[in-house]
Amino acid sequence: MKKEKEKIKIIPLGGLNEIGKNLTAIEYKNDIVVIDCGLKFPDDEMLGIDVVIPDVTYLVKNVDRVTGIFLTHAHEDHIGALPYVLKQINVPVYGTKLTLGIVESKLREHALLGVVDLREVKPKDIIKLTSVSVEFIKTNHSIADSVAIAIHTPLGVVLHTGDFKIDFTPIDGKVTDLTRFAELGKKGVTVLLADSTNVERPGYTMSESIVGESFEKIFHGAKGRVIVATFASNIHRVQQIITAARKYNRKVALSGRSMENIIAVAIELGYITIEEDALISIDSMGKYRDDEIVMITTGSQGEPMAALSRMAASEHKKVNIQKGDLVILSASPIPGNEKLVSKVINQLFKQGAEVVYESLAEVHVSGHACQEELKLMHSLVKPRFFIPVHGEYRHLKQHGELAVKLGLSEKNVYIGENGDLIEVSRTSIRKAGTVASGQVFVDGLGVGDVGNIVLRDRKHLSQDGILTVVVTMGKDTGSVIAGPDIISRGFVYVRESEDLMEKAREVVKEALAHCEEKHITEWPTIKATIREALREYLYEKTKRRPMILPIIMEV
Amino acid sequence: MKKEKEKIKIIPLGGLNEIGKNLTAIEYKNDIVVIDCGLKFPDDEMLGIDVVIPDVTYLVKNVDRVTGIFLTHAHEDHIGALPYVLKQINVPVYGTKLTLGIVESKLREHALLGVVDLREVKPKDIIKLTSVSVEFIKTNHSIADSVAIAIHTPLGVVLHTGDFKIDFTPIDGKVTDLTRFAELGKKGVTVLLADSTNVERPGYTMSESIVGESFEKIFHGAKGRVIVATFASNIHRVQQIITAARKYNRKVALSGRSMENIIAVAIELGYITIEEDALISIDSMGKYRDDEIVMITTGSQGEPMAALSRMAASEHKKVNIQKGDLVILSASPIPGNEKLVSKVINQLFKQGAEVVYESLAEVHVSGHACQEELKLMHSLVKPRFFIPVHGEYRHLKQHGELAVKLGLSEKNVYIGENGDLIEVSRTSIRKAGTVASGQVFVDGLGVGDVGNIVLRDRKHLSQDGILTVVVTMGKDTGSVIAGPDIISRGFVYVRESEDLMEKAREVVKEALAHCEEKHITEWPTIKATIREALREYLYEKTKRRPMILPIIMEV
Repeated sequence: MKKEKEKIKIIPLGGLNEIGKNLTAIEYKNDIVVIDCGLKFPDDEMLGIDVVIPDVTYLVKNVDRVTGIFLTHAHEDHIGALPYVLKQINVPVYGTKLTLGIVESKLREHALLGVVDLREVKPKDIIKLTSVSVEFIKTNHSIADSVAIAIHTPLGVVLHTGDFKIDFTPIDGKVTDLTRFAELGKKGVTVLLADSTNVERPGYTMSESIVGESFEKIFHGAKGRVIVATFASNIHRVQQIITAARKYNRKVALSGRSMENIIAVAIELGYITIEEDALISIDSMGKYRDDEIVMITTGSQGEPMAALSRMAASEHKKVNIQKGDLVILSASPIPGNEKLVSKVINQLFKQGAEVVYESLAEVHVSGHACQEELKLMHSLVKPRFFIPVHGEYRHLKQHGELAVKLGLSEKNVYIGENGDLIEVSRTSIRKAGTVASGQVFVDGLGVGDVGNIVLRDRKHLSQDGILTVVVTMGKDTGSVIAGPDIISRGFVYVRESEDLMEKAREVVKEALAHCEEKHITEWPTIKATIREALREYLYEKTKRRPMILPIIMEV
Repeated sequence: MKKEKEKIKIIPLGGLNEIGKNLTAIEYKNDIVVIDCGLKFPDDEMLGIDVVIPDVTYLVKNVDRVTGIFLTHAHEDHIGALPYVLKQINVPVYGTKLTLGIVESKLREHALLGVVDLREVKPKDIIKLTSVSVEFIKTNHSIADSVAIAIHTPLGVVLHTGDFKIDFTPIDGKVTDLTRFAELGKKGVTVLLADSTNVERPGYTMSESIVGESFEKIFHGAKGRVIVATFASNIHRVQQIITAARKYNRKVALSGRSMENIIAVAIELGYITIEEDALISIDSMGKYRDDEIVMITTGSQGEPMAALSRMAASEHKKVNIQKGDLVILSASPIPGNEKLVSKVINQLFKQGAEVVYESLAEVHVSGHACQEELKLMHSLVKPRFFIPVHGEYRHLKQHGELAVKLGLSEKNVYIGENGDLIEVSRTSIRKAGTVASGQVFVDGLGVGDVGNIVLRDRKHLSQDGILTVVVTMGKDTGSVIAGPDIISRGFVYVRESEDLMEKAREVVKEALAHCEEKHITEWPTIKATIREALREYLYEKTKRRPMILPIIMEV
């Protein structure tokens, strides 16, 4: 056998050192296989930004070799960037039935349906490309129809777990395909890329079915309406709510746009079983007694515009929370959402509802593998090299340590960064370079037109507001003809600070007089003089630093 | 005995439906006893605000009857508003030795030391006022020298627990004075006000001493520097770090302004025991081997300006994190700080440190009573009426339910709001009115000069920035002489959006032409026309809504 010169290249463009915008390119010879295409929700610092997507310049440059985008499951952090990325590279998209069903409704919103080549796959399917083939393997996760992806290359298998847990009693009866992972392990996995989200949690993630048991107990005692908030995409969770509702003779109403859309897809594709007359519209709830109703709603993260938040704040058009309602928050707050969720809980209590949430009952389980499940996966797969993915640095690092504890050599663990070009052979893993990567901000219709300078300005404006100073000057004389006028926004409540603003005007006048006296005529210098004088005065008086925007008009 | 017509009045001005700015006025005849005077840190929505303090208009109006401010302990949410409130009502401040020690250093910063009458008390002390007397009772909390306060009135005792837990093995050996609570219960407590923070947690809060055991284990294995981040005010925590340091022959260096200040006070007042040569300065750390050093630092909440965050980001002037450092985060993230804390943990790992935090080891315990401790307190005190305090609505509500489970009648539980005027007799509790209350924003030197309109503007500015449109018009002709000029900040990156900005200028020109054509000369109408035209154009093109600020200059 002649020595192979070709290497496998693994290029994470998102998902490392962050939870979100997962996208990994895996290359061998002429095939580039893209796994997932997710978005990230903005940090607190990214003021006004709607979503963040990965920079895919590398894929655009190599588009002729990109064989397709292969999806592991239909969560936003794995499919949310598709509409934006597909506008840049129109390649086939592979996914399981439910995944593509949800992708379709997303593409429809972006007027991309029909333009994109969607290719449905099932677990165990193998797609043959030029030099590699791509296999899909059943996993469990907090959305149905999730898969891991194995790429078979002449240098061995590259195995990407996707997001996964191991649930021995899943709602659809289909357990993570441990046998196949074991087979691949025996055959020889060169590189494993695995979900690191829950690596800090010892033990096992509980089975989804435990939540159903909680629902049954809670429904059993409920006397009024039951309202359950959860992620629309958690199809099995919704199925369990529906099952409990049937048992206690309650009709089911759906609330929230994404809940209605996704559940419609899930019912149509057969992922949710519900009797035909069990589903009612919100409008027809009035026809039933309170103890005949279950609502399933969005808003489990306290999102201000979601249905549950609007109900809690008495701002929902059709539903008011009433005494006797039992509200179940069937979700954990995602880090950063704790205060929003807490606010909704407070409001629900105030409206007279009983509220049940994770710290009070087992109404949620995670979708990600804890330490013992990760150990099981590593032990079955026995990879030669390991790249922890899907996590912040703390998670990647600790996932690496877990692999080392299981016997992997430290030098065979690669803790990477987005943009790393990782070269893998049968015997080595190394960083061979860096490609363009990063975050692209989506704000309204703009993709990438807001950058760090704009964000810095928004931050500045948000802290102390802005003072605009306008002066009209004579074109010939260079002396002040009108103004200075000062208009502030977000700085002080002007009616209570008239003195301050009046004196600020004096300060600008003095600065202008100084310029005239010194025969300073360059506008940039005049503006800088105004800005400096005003900044100093305001800081002394208020210890604040508003943005100062001097404008000179010439007539 | 003649019937008493006087009622006890209880007026919470802060601390209900919120965690923070605790301040409760308790009145009987001519005595107003104020318990605590705290601040609150701003919510995410309060852009640019430094701290929030309670509205004390009611106390200002009744200042002649305010007998003093009685402090339960020296946490910011109980003492932080003192400098602001004492400027409005200069009344005596009562507190235990450490509490006043910390208050003093706070007043010094505000140049109020010497102006305020500080009166030191000890547990068991009773201060006799005109119609009531005020007793201090030892409690345990996450700061030393905390007390509950009992107000003895002719209508029975009003008992305020302050923040408390029950620690049978506290570091200073002084357990919450359960005997005195039992005695008061036997004598007859008319109203109990009690800490609701941890009412959602079953069981008991662990003893502070368990953290010391963890420290010993961790220090035992440490080979490099040990860096522990905790709250400066957690004197006993700091003591335990010092004790562990001594055991393992390490010197102690303090980092962060509040850490240095508070520990200096604690050492001076005898609340911390440390050998004279055990404390070293950061500057002299170089003289010791890494395994001879413990640093105690601020920044356990990931505060961007605190010492630990600066070390983690390589922005600290004197300390760089190095491989081999062991960093212990001895604190829980306060709700809202999770992402900041996570960021610091990631950075520390990246710098090569080992990081130990709550989810990995027992390096923190709460300072607040869990359910079983609350039940013990209620069972000893056996109050006639109960007002849950120190919590969001969810906590108050559940604390009320806990009291009912212990046998109190539901009508004897009062779930209140800030500003409620609650009247209590021996046999009744009821809302008798409302007084002015609310939140006063402190921003720089301004106290109350930033209100909701300014915050709304800051929010608006933070989302999509601002476009300033300037036009110079002739005084006589009313026609445009110069401009329109458009200057944007925080909207788009102008160099990449020249087209958009140029067309926006055209839109404004058209709007101005329209006004001239229709002989519209009123500035407000012209401005509104500009704003409307530009808003519509920009929303269509970008789906964003920046603030639009038209300015007309007249020459």
